[in-house]
Amino acid sequence: MGGLSIKAGIVGGAGYTGGELLRLLLNHPNVEITFVHSNSQAGKPVHDTHTDLLGDTDLYFTDALQEEVDVLFLCVGHGAARKFLESEQLPASIKIIDLSQDFRWNESLKEAVVKGCDREFVYGLPELQRESIKQAQNIANPGCFATAIQLALLPLAQQNLLTEEVHVSGITGSTGAGQSLSATSHYSWRSGNISNYKVLNHQHLHEIRRTLQGMQNSELPSINFVPYRGPFTRGILCTSYTRCSLSQEEAEELYNSYYNSHPFVSISKSTPDLKQVVNTNKCLLHLQKEGDYLVVSSMIDNLLKGASGQAVQNMNLLFGLEEQAGLRLKASAF
Amino acid sequence: MGGLSIKAGIVGGAGYTGGELLRLLLNHPNVEITFVHSNSQAGKPVHDTHTDLLGDTDLYFTDALQEEVDVLFLCVGHGAARKFLESEQLPASIKIIDLSQDFRWNESLKEAVVKGCDREFVYGLPELQRESIKQAQNIANPGCFATAIQLALLPLAQQNLLTEEVHVSGITGSTGAGQSLSATSHYSWRSGNISNYKVLNHQHLHEIRRTLQGMQNSELPSINFVPYRGPFTRGILCTSYTRCSLSQEEAEELYNSYYNSHPFVSISKSTPDLKQVVNTNKCLLHLQKEGDYLVVSSMIDNLLKGASGQAVQNMNLLFGLEEQAGLRLKASAF
Amino acid sequence: MGGLSIKAGIVGGAGYTGGELLRLLLNHPNVEITFVHSNSQAGKPVHDTHTDLLGDTDLYFTDALQEEVDVLFLCVGHGAARKFLESEQLPASIKIIDLSQDFRWNESLKEAVVKGCDREFVYGLPELQRESIKQAQNIANPGCFATAIQLALLPLAQQNLLTEEVHVSGITGSTGAGQSLSATSHYSWRSGNISNYKVLNHQHLHEIRRTLQGMQNSELPSINFVPYRGPFTRGILCTSYTRCSLSQEEAEELYNSYYNSHPFVSISKSTPDLKQVVNTNKCLLHLQKEGDYLVVSSMIDNLLKGASGQAVQNMNLLFGLEEQAGLRLKASAF
Amino acid sequence: MGGLSIKAGIVGGAGYTGGELLRLLLNHPNVEITFVHSNSQAGKPVHDTHTDLLGDTDLYFTDALQEEVDVLFLCVGHGAARKFLESEQLPASIKIIDLSQDFRWNESLKEAVVKGCDREFVYGLPELQRESIKQAQNIANPGCFATAIQLALLPLAQQNLLTEEVHVSGITGSTGAGQSLSATSHYSWRSGNISNYKVLNHQHLHEIRRTLQGMQNSELPSINFVPYRGPFTRGILCTSYTRCSLSQEEAEELYNSYYNSHPFVSISKSTPDLKQVVNTNKCLLHLQKEGDYLVVSSMIDNLLKGASGQAVQNMNLLFGLEEQAGLRLKASAF
Repeated sequence: MGGLSIKAGIVGGAGYTGGELLRLLLNHPNVEITFVHSNSQAGKPVHDTHTDLLGDTDLYFTDALQEEVDVLFLCVGHGAARKFLESEQLPASIKIIDLSQDFRWNESLKEAVVKGCDREFVYGLPELQRESIKQAQNIANPGCFATAIQLALLPLAQQNLLTEEVHVSGITGSTGAGQSLSATSHYSWRSGNISNYKVLNHQHLHEIRRTLQGMQNSELPSINFVPYRGPFTRGILCTSYTRCSLSQEEAEELYNSYYNSHPFVSISKSTPDLKQVVNTNKCLLHLQKEGDYLVVSSMIDNLLKGASGQAVQNMNLLFGLEEQAGLRLKASAF
Repeated sequence: MGGLSIKAGIVGGAGYTGGELLRLLLNHPNVEITFVHSNSQAGKPVHDTHTDLLGDTDLYFTDALQEEVDVLFLCVGHGAARKFLESEQLPASIKIIDLSQDFRWNESLKEAVVKGCDREFVYGLPELQRESIKQAQNIANPGCFATAIQLALLPLAQQNLLTEEVHVSGITGSTGAGQSLSATSHYSWRSGNISNYKVLNHQHLHEIRRTLQGMQNSELPSINFVPYRGPFTRGILCTSYTRCSLSQEEAEELYNSYYNSHPFVSISKSTPDLKQVVNTNKCLLHLQKEGDYLVVSSMIDNLLKGASGQAVQNMNLLFGLEEQAGLRLKASAF
Repeated sequence: MGGLSIKAGIVGGAGYTGGELLRLLLNHPNVEITFVHSNSQAGKPVHDTHTDLLGDTDLYFTDALQEEVDVLFLCVGHGAARKFLESEQLPASIKIIDLSQDFRWNESLKEAVVKGCDREFVYGLPELQRESIKQAQNIANPGCFATAIQLALLPLAQQNLLTEEVHVSGITGSTGAGQSLSATSHYSWRSGNISNYKVLNHQHLHEIRRTLQGMQNSELPSINFVPYRGPFTRGILCTSYTRCSLSQEEAEELYNSYYNSHPFVSISKSTPDLKQVVNTNKCLLHLQKEGDYLVVSSMIDNLLKGASGQAVQNMNLLFGLEEQAGLRLKASAF
Repeated sequence: MGGLSIKAGIVGGAGYTGGELLRLLLNHPNVEITFVHSNSQAGKPVHDTHTDLLGDTDLYFTDALQEEVDVLFLCVGHGAARKFLESEQLPASIKIIDLSQDFRWNESLKEAVVKGCDREFVYGLPELQRESIKQAQNIANPGCFATAIQLALLPLAQQNLLTEEVHVSGITGSTGAGQSLSATSHYSWRSGNISNYKVLNHQHLHEIRRTLQGMQNSELPSINFVPYRGPFTRGILCTSYTRCSLSQEEAEELYNSYYNSHPFVSISKSTPDLKQVVNTNKCLLHLQKEGDYLVVSSMIDNLLKGASGQAVQNMNLLFGLEEQAGLRLKASAF
């Protein structure tokens, strides 16, 4: 494993998830970046766009694809990943890790594998189906809110314990909306500000429901989700609660047992805060029984465990590498 | 009314709510500040503590009470207001506006008036009971989260429409926790951070339930509240939802009708954000029907409509002044 | 004075300074807003753009000018003010307060009055020339950094004490760059970030030099200015130092004497911080003698004393109103 | 080198620099942490204090020293390092890396090596004297502002080009002041705020002058430094300027040549910003010739290149490891 070197290409390398992927892959012990594709920045140094990489890489963006890669990461927008695969005739031997939502679910919300562009995509949530990912050729990388909420609820779904309505609120940082300029990404607006959006109708509910219904025998109840935009750049914190017969001790035992073999998920005994996971690939969970309700807090870094970090975790699994390779990241902590 | 000058005293003037009250009263056209009491800062200029008041006032903190006041604001901590009134023999003619929670409710959660220290306290939420406040001698000023949540739900309770569980999430700025230094008030910790606390067991639920049950004929359902600490200084945003038979139009009509005569509450057609109300005494509401649920967003400045601004509003009502006197504040907006 | 009502028009009302001016004029006791002009937002409610004004005003933006005004505020961009006056034939009786830099100085940097568009513009820094402003017909409102730096140096210039190089560093919030979207106004970039720009060549040095040279008999030395962009929305803090023969006491006496009659400038004995002036029209100064150097710290809110607040202060002087009318603003403090 | 494992101990492990050192050493390929000393937290898990380390380490704080270490990091406060070494009789064979200022300079400001506690301390700025550090037994790790300012000026001093006054302004994040609670570390105060402090008399000037005078043949001019507290957690940005005969091209050539062999320093052609280095051990420099002045901008992460990262860099040099071992850190970037 020490000698293994995977050739990776990145499509859409000028955006936030592309940049974060570059930060990870440049330090990954088993990866060589073959090319970084960007239509808008082709011909320019990568560190012109991702300025923190000055001194770390002399790579240039290119608008030419190269087929001599083992894995291709698609960091383009929703809808653009499908179009890209339709227009390019890539060899089936190239593994695809798509960070968009294009192949996360299909309308039935029932099939385990999503087919499209002559490929079959496995939903890349390692804590749900690590073994399937190891065998996969193509990965649909989960959404950020979807990752945080699913990790909060997976153990309950596995035990058929999601029987009553689930209520979730969650707050995301500004990088979740990408680098495009908009009124809600303007510093003068967002600094010190809070707003909700897509209340009870966020698009990530599709992939969440697909996953959870796939695990449970019984009918899945409603999941009500209130998302907020927060005045910070990185991270997602969610609070989920539902009526549940488990005691505090039983719930902790269930969660510890479920996540015991998963290196990126920890259960915190004390009330956690978002910055414990910022700039890491970790997910932190906290359990609290309050009356009839079980409250599960979950937090991730939206660009890492919620996007590019999870993509690397999936790559590690696809190629038989250690799951944490290249992902032992120093938390920013402050 | 132009000539009326109310003599006001402040007890606990060195804290956040005391300072905010000073900022308001110094510019109030009908108020003369007789004294500002502080045990910890007695003998020092007020602008040593509230440094933004340099150039605005030459007042000094004192540890001596003066009885020649028309109204006394108690800006001391929870529990300390009751102790203060017990230990001082104040003439009953001095009106009291208490910003602590000491007289907001009693254990029965049923009586309209809370008795204590030989006084009767009216709960000072003008949008609930303006007429009672006008006739009152003593006011228990509401809590900040309690204000934001009640204003979101009052019209429904008045129509007996709170029949199913209510789910509320809300985020508060750092000034809500006062000026004491603590781990969660440290800049290095709180900047860019989010955490939840007192999930489903926040103390403000008492006064919320007391109010809403008092309005409804039918039994009040559970109110589940998830509070968050956010990385900003001023303001509270809450999102409440409950199953409700009203259509979007009916809900808007109900809320517009309810708040029509209340100058500090506005209904926003578009999705609002917190900074529309920061540094003002306003409450902004937004209604959204989503499936069976009615979603109500509400936002206030915790130090103003959630504390000192509402205290001045109550003072205006107690003394027959215009309700907005001294409270036409320029929003900070950014 | 109580009964005086000035009819005011605003051109460029949809930008940051236009919005701030609206916030001030809506509460000003002697002003009636006749119209708010905006090409981009004509026909829409003012509170669609300046959303904090919901509930405060039912004004609509218009693209039609009205001539029945006493004063017209120009809140358009640099260059656009001159073009506006060139294209419109406004009666000379309408007083103009221009917030752009178009009439602040001319190339000679020597004349006290700048002529243009058949008008004569007096530089509107009341602490420099209040009496000239009172007699003026048209005002060129100073720049934000220029205001902060001039207020730090005026007393020295008046005494011919600016004889050696002056070194200034200053930090501005994001609203100084206006509401246009740009890489440096993106929240994800600016949050937690610092950068310098236009080091030693900021354009405000022109108006600063014009003023100071106009006061001093001797030749003005170099003024070296390092501006920074800071992660906050409102305010400017500058630190200026120069070799100076005055002692600490003499300096304090000079500054106190100079600013004694100016209601918006205070000298702080203790080390001040920016938020003492945020959301007010104040300027705070602090003096420190350190070796041969006199260090002067100065701070203002860039949108108020650095723009719209000073514009209202100038209007008050133009019309013989009390200088503080409509400008007794509650600091946001936090 | 791959097999080398250095046994490291940390004294003062519960503070900010101690925590940051732990974050680095836990992932360092050649280090084994033998113990983490803390008087205040002895007996408690390390992740109780540094909560982001939950899941990364099962270490406990101890109040017992162990002598079987190769290197001991002192992360205690100024003054406490000297006391610690005086009271403990540590074998001379244990290498010491002291992060306090206790052995950075002595009163003469002239000697290359500072003696104390029977040890000789080499000033640990690798870009100044990498070879001396490699031969050293004990290291005095530089201060954060001192690192940023020295890296901006070293090439000039080496060429005897510091002949006229140097003017420096710099802004630091809140972690520079450590984890103790104080008025200026309170979130409600610091958020959105700016203040200066110790203007022209900051204590780091001692070590800066010692270094620069040691390099220059000619007398060192005054260095005037204006430090600011900024509303962010990590990082320092400094702007230094002095009259200099070099052209833009000559300056770039000098700096590129000087830093060519130093892996953590990069020269940016475009105007940089602080977040390019946050959460890394890098220093970024930018050069601008403006009239007679050469302007040098420099930026570092105060906890990494300004403290614990530099300490690890020094350890790498002391033990003959690759200079970047354990220090290839993913920037937080946002």
